[in-house]
Amino acid sequence: MNEYKRIPAHIGVIPDGNRRWAVERGMDKKDGYRYGIEPGFQLYELCTELGVQELTLYGFTVDNTKRPANQKKAFQKACVDAVMDLANRDAELLVVGNTDSPCFPKELLPFTHRVKFGAGKMKVNFLVNYGWDWDLKYIGGPASKDISRMDLIVRWGGRRRLSGFLPIQSVYADMYVLDELWPDFTPEHLYRALDWYQYQDVTLGG
Amino acid sequence: MNEYKRIPAHIGVIPDGNRRWAVERGMDKKDGYRYGIEPGFQLYELCTELGVQELTLYGFTVDNTKRPANQKKAFQKACVDAVMDLANRDAELLVVGNTDSPCFPKELLPFTHRVKFGAGKMKVNFLVNYGWDWDLKYIGGPASKDISRMDLIVRWGGRRRLSGFLPIQSVYADMYVLDELWPDFTPEHLYRALDWYQYQDVTLGG
Repeated sequence: MNEYKRIPAHIGVIPDGNRRWAVERGMDKKDGYRYGIEPGFQLYELCTELGVQELTLYGFTVDNTKRPANQKKAFQKACVDAVMDLANRDAELLVVGNTDSPCFPKELLPFTHRVKFGAGKMKVNFLVNYGWDWDLKYIGGPASKDISRMDLIVRWGGRRRLSGFLPIQSVYADMYVLDELWPDFTPEHLYRALDWYQYQDVTLGG
Repeated sequence: MNEYKRIPAHIGVIPDGNRRWAVERGMDKKDGYRYGIEPGFQLYELCTELGVQELTLYGFTVDNTKRPANQKKAFQKACVDAVMDLANRDAELLVVGNTDSPCFPKELLPFTHRVKFGAGKMKVNFLVNYGWDWDLKYIGGPASKDISRMDLIVRWGGRRRLSGFLPIQSVYADMYVLDELWPDFTPEHLYRALDWYQYQDVTLGG
């Protein structure tokens, strides 16, 4: 385990590249998603050990649900499977997303209020059928108000953009992009992001 | 002039590094800001030639006004000077920022509705005493509603973050960061960003 002076209190994760990873292996695009579950738990365990207090994962968005039906089913299932596995660990889970749409998996409704699993400890936020515009137009808003400001956002898959990821919580976040595809996750990826993060100053515009 | 297949309709610019540039030259931090005006016009001219339709520049923010008074005066003056010079060129200018605060330069009040200079053509948006939270809580919201979604954001000065730059308009933007400080702007910087932009796909999450 590396030693860091600065550990971000809250890390946001954009786990991109599942479909490209599947295609590279001659698989169907939809088959990439289930290979994205185990990396999520590796990352979760690492963050727990490092003392990260809050971790937010970009599951799928309202935009994503325009994709072909077999892909949609595959990423919905991957999200449900991930939550069912997390329930056996220590976490305080909150699922945030538009539950009024049939695209939101019903199995995840009990977790739209924060639920403690095991000894709790790290807050884990999971965006499921999330839409940035839905989030911001929420009455008494934003819908994501129980998610704190992110310090560091790490994106896999090479794209240097937010793709609608929590516009309010990302205003001051440092963003680190890895070219590697998400299913190829290794701990070294997170260490690389944290090594870089050590040298970023926090100014909040001051 | 380079030839590009894809020209972003709307480019956002975060011209960071003025103070670091001044300190590197043994100058006072505040003196960096005025060296940031001419690069802005070079960029504006280049974008006009390339056929960019809209250009948004991050002037200063409500957060920035916490800085020492001499710095605050210097960046306020730089913003006013830039607008007075732009008035002699072709542009459709809109200044967006919190006018209820004494930090907003009164000289810029006439431009808080879009004003046509010369032959008009390119839309130029200038954020002056802008705050992301002020923007989003605006009644009939957002205060920046006359600024369109950005396709590409280019940031000078090496920091990989938005620093509160237009949270709604940046949701799908590709972000390109240059390590060079803003007063050292050369056209090659923009070309480098555009070369990179050629290979980014626009998915909007689909």
